[in-house]
Amino acid sequence: MISSRVRTLVSSLGPQALRTGTGTGTSTGTGTWRPLLARYSSAAEPAAPDAPPAVPPVLPLATIREVLAAKALAGPSPAEAPSGEQQPVHVGGWVQTVRRMKRDLFLELSDGSTAKGIQVILPRDSVAFSQLLDQAAALGVADMSDTSADGLATGVSLEVRGRLTPSPGKNQTFELLADGVNILGLARSTFPLQKKFHRPEFLRDISHLRPKTRNFGSVLRVRDASSKSMHHILDNLGFVHIHTPILTTNDCEGAGETFEVKGPIFDGDGASTTATSPDGQQHYFGSPSYLTVSGQLQLEAAACGLSRVYTFGPTFRAENSHTSRHLSEFWMLEAEVAFIRSIQDIVGLTSTLFRSNIAAILSRCPEDLEHLEKNSPGLGERLAGFVGSGPPDGPNPFPVITYTEAIDILEREARGATSFLVGHAGSDAEGATHTAPALPPLAWGDNLSSDHERFLCERVFAGQPVYVVDYPQALKPFYMRQNDHADPARPTVAAMDMLVPGVGELIGGSVREERLDRLEQAIAGAGLCPEAYAWYTDLRRYGTVPHGGFGIGFERLIMVLTGMTNIRDAIPFPRYPGRCQL
Amino acid sequence: MISSRVRTLVSSLGPQALRTGTGTGTSTGTGTWRPLLARYSSAAEPAAPDAPPAVPPVLPLATIREVLAAKALAGPSPAEAPSGEQQPVHVGGWVQTVRRMKRDLFLELSDGSTAKGIQVILPRDSVAFSQLLDQAAALGVADMSDTSADGLATGVSLEVRGRLTPSPGKNQTFELLADGVNILGLARSTFPLQKKFHRPEFLRDISHLRPKTRNFGSVLRVRDASSKSMHHILDNLGFVHIHTPILTTNDCEGAGETFEVKGPIFDGDGASTTATSPDGQQHYFGSPSYLTVSGQLQLEAAACGLSRVYTFGPTFRAENSHTSRHLSEFWMLEAEVAFIRSIQDIVGLTSTLFRSNIAAILSRCPEDLEHLEKNSPGLGERLAGFVGSGPPDGPNPFPVITYTEAIDILEREARGATSFLVGHAGSDAEGATHTAPALPPLAWGDNLSSDHERFLCERVFAGQPVYVVDYPQALKPFYMRQNDHADPARPTVAAMDMLVPGVGELIGGSVREERLDRLEQAIAGAGLCPEAYAWYTDLRRYGTVPHGGFGIGFERLIMVLTGMTNIRDAIPFPRYPGRCQL
Repeated sequence: MISSRVRTLVSSLGPQALRTGTGTGTSTGTGTWRPLLARYSSAAEPAAPDAPPAVPPVLPLATIREVLAAKALAGPSPAEAPSGEQQPVHVGGWVQTVRRMKRDLFLELSDGSTAKGIQVILPRDSVAFSQLLDQAAALGVADMSDTSADGLATGVSLEVRGRLTPSPGKNQTFELLADGVNILGLARSTFPLQKKFHRPEFLRDISHLRPKTRNFGSVLRVRDASSKSMHHILDNLGFVHIHTPILTTNDCEGAGETFEVKGPIFDGDGASTTATSPDGQQHYFGSPSYLTVSGQLQLEAAACGLSRVYTFGPTFRAENSHTSRHLSEFWMLEAEVAFIRSIQDIVGLTSTLFRSNIAAILSRCPEDLEHLEKNSPGLGERLAGFVGSGPPDGPNPFPVITYTEAIDILEREARGATSFLVGHAGSDAEGATHTAPALPPLAWGDNLSSDHERFLCERVFAGQPVYVVDYPQALKPFYMRQNDHADPARPTVAAMDMLVPGVGELIGGSVREERLDRLEQAIAGAGLCPEAYAWYTDLRRYGTVPHGGFGIGFERLIMVLTGMTNIRDAIPFPRYPGRCQL
Repeated sequence: MISSRVRTLVSSLGPQALRTGTGTGTSTGTGTWRPLLARYSSAAEPAAPDAPPAVPPVLPLATIREVLAAKALAGPSPAEAPSGEQQPVHVGGWVQTVRRMKRDLFLELSDGSTAKGIQVILPRDSVAFSQLLDQAAALGVADMSDTSADGLATGVSLEVRGRLTPSPGKNQTFELLADGVNILGLARSTFPLQKKFHRPEFLRDISHLRPKTRNFGSVLRVRDASSKSMHHILDNLGFVHIHTPILTTNDCEGAGETFEVKGPIFDGDGASTTATSPDGQQHYFGSPSYLTVSGQLQLEAAACGLSRVYTFGPTFRAENSHTSRHLSEFWMLEAEVAFIRSIQDIVGLTSTLFRSNIAAILSRCPEDLEHLEKNSPGLGERLAGFVGSGPPDGPNPFPVITYTEAIDILEREARGATSFLVGHAGSDAEGATHTAPALPPLAWGDNLSSDHERFLCERVFAGQPVYVVDYPQALKPFYMRQNDHADPARPTVAAMDMLVPGVGELIGGSVREERLDRLEQAIAGAGLCPEAYAWYTDLRRYGTVPHGGFGIGFERLIMVLTGMTNIRDAIPFPRYPGRCQL
């Protein structure tokens, strides 16, 4: 059940709340502090008269998105036709394209607030056009003439004052008839982002300019919308955001693929910082510290007080991976829920989150999706298909199979025992690229490779996300709960992976082992040091509760949402072995 | 102007949107995938009938907050009186206190979803009470008897089924009459959190159990609400969340107080990762890498494409600070806005953000604030006073003085030239602790110390936040914009600090130098390497725009919102020199 109170409170944070003062009057207000200052300084001004406060805009210029949205809401009124009485508009942005027509100059101006930008019209006989030429001349643009306007190239920044008018063009409803133009900055001729196709590799090399491109702008806006939607959905479900630490002395997975962090060692009064640790060395924190590989264990501590918690932050792996699906620094959303016992609860929760997040993107970012579809045909249909026809917080519609079932499928496939591929080739979302995969054979107890994962969702289940549950205990970390129902010869744990087309594993989760004796056995069995996990076993020693959780690789989700095929293009500033630009 | 379109879109992400499918039907739904699986496995089930989907709760148990909110909305109906026909309730939580009365056992149960918890009643003649005794016996609690129930101590975890009934007590409106109780976990006798006062230092030593305390639970819920409100307010203002990187090869402030990060060096196929850098050493990223001290410079790159951007993430300082206001790892919200020219725009924006955030906390967390007031008298009044009587997004109501004015005030104070202290002692929010501060003397060009900052807002402006603007250029980093209006003998920059009572500097911001020639001079003047900042000057080379931004120390804001006096108690897992627990 979603808390209606939480919903009420959240909705009260909307625009109305922003304008609803809750003050009880201890603030002295604008008018009363200047006299205090007058005791000290001649710079004091007389107190302002006690007029009711007007609410001017928070920022001086509107964004293009705001201008277009306000206009779309108001609609074209009869008074606006060609009489020039329209509300004046003042925007800033960067020139995307220039079209030089005989009578008019057309500029496409973008400020990054929308995928489309706005079309600006400068009649050659207008004051604004003369202004532009004068400014260009003053800036030393010698070859800008009445006919060429060459200084006005892609990347130039402008302020434009004008009036919105209905557009005769088919690409926009309104255009901006300029009354005045102000050149803010030229783009030197070395500007690398000319109007043409740029390879993703080229753009990654200029990551400081990449946000100026239309394509990456759409990725960043979808990423923003997805992130905000995650907070919103989890808030509705009663989850508290816990900021788990980046610096840690734990190693959650026991994997050892961690970055070590070195701080300075202080002499003298910093004695407490230079305590010699068991390794015989001095450390800033008194012991070796690492960048987090997962906030899960700390999150479990929070869940044992607050019941429903999540963390959403950067996570690090010092792997030697040079694939399209791995980063050294990536964002992960991890959640932990007390009082759940079944892996099906984690399946249901993650399905709700995934589908509700996609529904939010479809509702918030239609223009960005439309643009991204040019490089990822069928993107919108694919996302709408994932949401499906039921409510996004309804029952999980995606296939759920056990690991054992998955192995059975993959074994038969490797033996050629089915004609499945032939029968379903037509419904494969990925088309011809996977028509004859040479799947490596595997047996119960083996890890699924990325190819196996993608084969399951792309081929067997025809492009749907697929849940695989109940993995062999030996494949999974010590903290996952042993399944009571498992074959003793093949012990399994209550774990799940959600596999999605094009990406493979997107979400991983499990029920955690809440039984102290079992957990202590698992820690010993994994060869871990019990003392290092004493705090973690304390959570079972004092009021243990059944609980579980999951983690979503956020950049992999952005790949799904945007159709990007390389994870390096799903994050503003990618870090991978050999590369840490800016 | 706040975008009405953005507002509309955001409101469409509410509960209604969660239940509005946008699917166009490519998903096959629950019923259709099992037949596919049947080709491979005998485990397949028959397809489910095509019933319209019901929407069960996403998670099996409701939180106490949800239960109380639903009941408060519904109100006690006549049918509910003592007839036992109330809707059954099923919750889980941890025992806070036990009161043993002659006829009944009273438990206060908390699941961390609210500050208050719920009172559970177990009549000694009830089935539930017998259940409890049987379970305790089975768990080996020997001394639990009909009269003592000693096993039921603080920290024990329970599931309770029962019915909400109006409470005769004065502390709650409803209480839970138990029909059945299930002990989930005992709390061993070594449990450190008995019902008594615990010093903050003691609780910091058991940071894995600290979320179980009522006080820290309130801090974490307020922190969550503040964080979510920040995203919400910035979304309404059209800001895009950019996840700036943690790992960086920049050093934004040029301060050198950074943590270095060491990754493994790979042989063989990892050749590209082990490129020898200019320092003659091999590095995981090809050059030395550090933990970020600010996302500002990368954020400026994003602002030069998307206009309004922010980042909200962990930030690191390897200082040797052992104060109540410094952490080695802290969260910072930084924003950057294109097309603004005046420091007054940054003042207005930060004032809106600060006051709107407080308004959200007052609206969302009244019970937590009520609890936190016990340790911070007047907290709610203080916060309401900061919001004031005007709209939170109205004009800034707080004093704005120049650095030169601040120095003038502090100089006169140090010379004893005013009787200001005596005249205003009564209105000091901090009371007696600051009655006779020995302010160190200072002159134009000196940095304000934390004592100076607090004196200004706590004493001179009687407990109000204060903005100080136009600092000497020599005190500030290279990227701040030189003021054209400044006395050439005393050059200043368009910078601002917001000082708040009890904390000192909470927000710092500036207009950035957008003029290429001035910026290059400043980089050279600061002794920085121009090549390292070539990407940053590119932002001025290609379509430069006037822009500015600010950063808020999030834990310092949490100190203001919760009344906590030590920053180590404003973050879930604090890191400071010598301490990195968990």
